[in-house]
Amino acid sequence: MTRTAIIAGQGALPRLLADRLDAPLLAELHGFPADLGGRPVQPFRLERLVPFLDHLVGQGIARVCFVGAVRRPRLEPELFDARTATLVPRLLTAMQSGDDAALREVIAIFGEWGLDVVGADALAPDLVPGAGVLTGTPSDADARDAARAAAIVAGLGALDIGQGAVVAQGLCLAVETLPGTDAMLAFVADHAPRLRPDPKGAKGVLYKAPKPGQDRRIDLPAIGPDTVRNAARAGLAGIAWEAGGLLLLDRAATLAEAGAAGLFLWAREP
Amino acid sequence: MTRTAIIAGQGALPRLLADRLDAPLLAELHGFPADLGGRPVQPFRLERLVPFLDHLVGQGIARVCFVGAVRRPRLEPELFDARTATLVPRLLTAMQSGDDAALREVIAIFGEWGLDVVGADALAPDLVPGAGVLTGTPSDADARDAARAAAIVAGLGALDIGQGAVVAQGLCLAVETLPGTDAMLAFVADHAPRLRPDPKGAKGVLYKAPKPGQDRRIDLPAIGPDTVRNAARAGLAGIAWEAGGLLLLDRAATLAEAGAAGLFLWAREP
Repeated sequence: MTRTAIIAGQGALPRLLADRLDAPLLAELHGFPADLGGRPVQPFRLERLVPFLDHLVGQGIARVCFVGAVRRPRLEPELFDARTATLVPRLLTAMQSGDDAALREVIAIFGEWGLDVVGADALAPDLVPGAGVLTGTPSDADARDAARAAAIVAGLGALDIGQGAVVAQGLCLAVETLPGTDAMLAFVADHAPRLRPDPKGAKGVLYKAPKPGQDRRIDLPAIGPDTVRNAARAGLAGIAWEAGGLLLLDRAATLAEAGAAGLFLWAREP
Repeated sequence: MTRTAIIAGQGALPRLLADRLDAPLLAELHGFPADLGGRPVQPFRLERLVPFLDHLVGQGIARVCFVGAVRRPRLEPELFDARTATLVPRLLTAMQSGDDAALREVIAIFGEWGLDVVGADALAPDLVPGAGVLTGTPSDADARDAARAAAIVAGLGALDIGQGAVVAQGLCLAVETLPGTDAMLAFVADHAPRLRPDPKGAKGVLYKAPKPGQDRRIDLPAIGPDTVRNAARAGLAGIAWEAGGLLLLDRAATLAEAGAAGLFLWAREP
């Protein structure tokens, strides 16, 4: 049978995934502690990536899944071992490019050790809702806002910036960048009230989708109860996403939160 | 001789421009009071656009210049006169599209009254700095950040979102949307400190440019002393823009502010 390693970043997803797997090896990038509910977890540093890869292979790991948010780590030159040092040019080039390039390079390096990188959706398909409205009722105006936001997110993808945008009444109120979805929603909460042309009109939609060119095995967008809470604080009508391209964390709690706040949740056909 | 009307929005530009013209007619959109230093100014409403256009023609106006920020106004149905009402479908279509479409429609309507819409840069070419570094010294890393930001802003232009972005160490920290440049810089000030991979590395660049497809007669990007102050608060290294495509408000004060804060100002060749 295939043993799986979870390279855990921040957020709720690593723990949800660990619950679903049989004795996974859990690792976390130094400086980015994961919440794994007290399970033993092995920290590793990019400066010692080669010994870590050897260790995974030695433990019988065949599959690796990257889940949860990680920022680009700082590299400390004196910590590199000799073999990892030979990877430095590739790592640096990747880290200076956009997210996609960096992730593709990481997948390539793991592949060279015979490790199969798989997406969280492959390990836990129940986290990916099928197409349809999960709760609430998007209005025609909401559907137009979702369509405009989807076009914006697709266009942003080509620029390798982010995986989300907020549109209200046809106007783009915010675009997701490095600080992430919650920072974007806080920005909208601060600014949107005076920007919607018709205060009684459509309140706006958060739309999330993978970048068109991205490798979906890493960094699929995700939402959970906190996203719903922050979208409600931003005064939005609901959240839409590309059906099949988003992980819904803690479905029951997320749906309950959306129901209580009167927000729709919509896995939209692209 | 040609008499000019200034349709004044918010910010410092309308007053700077009024200072440079001989007896301009000054108008402001109802609900968006302009700072014109106490000069007489005539408010108008979009619901009565046709009578306003007739009035401009009757006053011997041949040229119209739109300057300063204006948000999309709300329309009050009961205020429309009969002739402006016939323009409603065009106005609504325009207002529901992106900024560019809305502005192009406004220019078209003014043109139908024989009014020549001109850019602020045509009336006051001294407000548009020529190519070159105006103050400070962009590093090689700053130049790379400016190049990446320029590519992002060009890509955003195709989506008709905004005219600016902030990039630090190759990473896009923020993209300008409806809330504007100062809101974007406040967002960067809140989030950037923990996002720059190397705390001693490049601090980041604000880049501004017109959208690639936009009509440059309306809504050319502008910066002034406040922009510099907010960029400094966001911890940036400097401000770059597309040479020839930006209005520099109050050049002396802006340069002084940048000098005091140690920021570069760079009119970059596209």
